[in-house]
Amino acid sequence: MNDVIELLQSHRSIRKYRDQPLPDGLLEQLVSAAQYASSSNNVQAYSIIRVSDKNNRARLQELAGNQVYISQAAEFLVFCADMKRNTEAAARTGIEPTLGMTEQLLVSTIDTALVAQNFAIAAESEGLGVVYIGGVRNNPQEISDLLKLPKHVYPVFGMCVGYPEHHPDVKPRLPIATVLKQDYYDSEHDIALVAKYDSEMDEYYQQRAGSNKVSNWSESMAPMFSGKLRPHMRDFLISQGFEMK
Amino acid sequence: MNDVIELLQSHRSIRKYRDQPLPDGLLEQLVSAAQYASSSNNVQAYSIIRVSDKNNRARLQELAGNQVYISQAAEFLVFCADMKRNTEAAARTGIEPTLGMTEQLLVSTIDTALVAQNFAIAAESEGLGVVYIGGVRNNPQEISDLLKLPKHVYPVFGMCVGYPEHHPDVKPRLPIATVLKQDYYDSEHDIALVAKYDSEMDEYYQQRAGSNKVSNWSESMAPMFSGKLRPHMRDFLISQGFEMK
Repeated sequence: MNDVIELLQSHRSIRKYRDQPLPDGLLEQLVSAAQYASSSNNVQAYSIIRVSDKNNRARLQELAGNQVYISQAAEFLVFCADMKRNTEAAARTGIEPTLGMTEQLLVSTIDTALVAQNFAIAAESEGLGVVYIGGVRNNPQEISDLLKLPKHVYPVFGMCVGYPEHHPDVKPRLPIATVLKQDYYDSEHDIALVAKYDSEMDEYYQQRAGSNKVSNWSESMAPMFSGKLRPHMRDFLISQGFEMK
Repeated sequence: MNDVIELLQSHRSIRKYRDQPLPDGLLEQLVSAAQYASSSNNVQAYSIIRVSDKNNRARLQELAGNQVYISQAAEFLVFCADMKRNTEAAARTGIEPTLGMTEQLLVSTIDTALVAQNFAIAAESEGLGVVYIGGVRNNPQEISDLLKLPKHVYPVFGMCVGYPEHHPDVKPRLPIATVLKQDYYDSEHDIALVAKYDSEMDEYYQQRAGSNKVSNWSESMAPMFSGKLRPHMRDFLISQGFEMK
């Protein structure tokens, strides 16, 4: 196992940060490295908003599920899917760009995720910790207003970045046989494998320092799917120019 | 600059592969490392189909834009967004899962992209090359049939993996000032910065060994947006259970 693979396998979300800024220029170096992620036809369909303004950080914290580390982390980035820059560039060559296709929502969301994951790894390689904040999709319209996001740009997720103040255990993942399938999608053994993982997660939560959570994976999935998950997202995306045509 | 950042910055898509298989067990090791990517509420909403069957590889090549490296690469993986395994696990705890939300399309697509990018980096750290194949979305229904993808699973992209037979130059990326924005979305300087990048890309294409392509970034964006991009995606996703409600 090489050092890079070891780094990937040591990932855990960091939610407590030391009160210590990043050295000058490091954030730019990490973003610059992240930009080398693959991009569909090189559209580079993302923008990253670095939120340093303290009032906006506090407001983002409220809007994104009240997670205190959004204010506390040295840096907070909002990763946005961006179909504005590339289509405006295309328009300047004389074409009339078609927007609002479902495929464009996918392309820009995927591009954003790839660059963010590269960023996360670059950050972790420098001893920083990160946590993705899907909570920016709790109130995406208010957050878009706050960050002055124009049409054809939407906030996909946030990310806290800073020097870790805690070192949580690495969370076990699903058995590889459920996620890696040979030639066809075959779920024959999934029930048994998920049951095995449920026990493992139960043990993980019980052993974890400071955790009183008693739950297994299947149970932890239930609340996510027992109601309509972020039902505002459809209308928000449409109003932002991602019509899913 | 550390070794990990150097690795990220050396990424280029590989489209010519040596006729050399991966050592036994390496693919599983890479997938296993990739699984440690962040996942929204730990839903791990993806499955990876490893296509070894030669006939299916040939068929996938035809269906995904006739890119010969799909057949030639040592490995070809189809990364799928998967909302089946997690909702079925939730259902077994006694709830009736709600599916088809726009948010679930986003969550599963993002989860898939994060795990894929981790995989790409793990592979490159072992001297392998990769290329993402968005072309699996050219004919997603036929590909889903071929791979027996059930409802609530859709092919997001493919990936070729193997030992590189060529070493293309690293493609320049957009100036960091266009993608990293301070506190607000500000595009005031984007036109000038994109013009600078256009010149850089023009030079890159002209200097690249064996490339007769004369184009800049803005011009290369035009064909992507001058028509309806993969207009079948909406209906395909709906029929696959991703209704974007």
